[in-house]
Amino acid sequence: MKINQININQKFKKINDFWSPKVIAQMNDYQFKLAKVKGEFIWHHHDSTDETFFVIKGNLLIELKDSKIKLGPGELVVIPKGIEHKPYAKDECEIMLIEPKNVKNTGNISSELTVENDHWI
Amino acid sequence: MKINQININQKFKKINDFWSPKVIAQMNDYQFKLAKVKGEFIWHHHDSTDETFFVIKGNLLIELKDSKIKLGPGELVVIPKGIEHKPYAKDECEIMLIEPKNVKNTGNISSELTVENDHWI
Repeated sequence: MKINQININQKFKKINDFWSPKVIAQMNDYQFKLAKVKGEFIWHHHDSTDETFFVIKGNLLIELKDSKIKLGPGELVVIPKGIEHKPYAKDECEIMLIEPKNVKNTGNISSELTVENDHWI
Repeated sequence: MKINQININQKFKKINDFWSPKVIAQMNDYQFKLAKVKGEFIWHHHDSTDETFFVIKGNLLIELKDSKIKLGPGELVVIPKGIEHKPYAKDECEIMLIEPKNVKNTGNISSELTVENDHWI
């Protein structure tokens, strides 16, 4: 088994679409995913798991039902399971997601924004 | 329940010791920990879990029995469970660790470098 370091900036260069998380590493049954995001995502929640958003570049707004979370580079938030949230980025933003394998990006909702899981780059 | 963003650079300012991971967030039963490191750690492994090292600032070398992993800012590696490893930083380095709650920092070894778990900042 070869153990390799992963450079996230090199991985981001391989991403050309928005709101489509790509897996870069797995730890036990958890995955590290990178995504470029821009514009509005949809309201959704995850019934069975918390979800971590870590901003690498740019600014991300996560709307909750009763508040808004503003994240800049080097800032993270854990959205608890069951909590409705809607990510939004005015300008292009690079984020890392950390969550269990097989979490659907749109949570309880199926939409045109739902993407295939477990897509490695 | 209040959901707050966490700024890792602000959290690093609260850390004054080396090789003593501090918890900044929890996602399900996994924790995000920050540590400042400098010098040599000890050879150890974790019997029951993989462990992720993500370098925020500086450079980290992780010696394995048959190779060495060099990590700079924005680079991460997942050390699989059971794999012997020894972290080393020539100069001060800031890292994020992601692993299950209650993982002992020195793994299978108890030493003067073993620190209390679940220490939040």
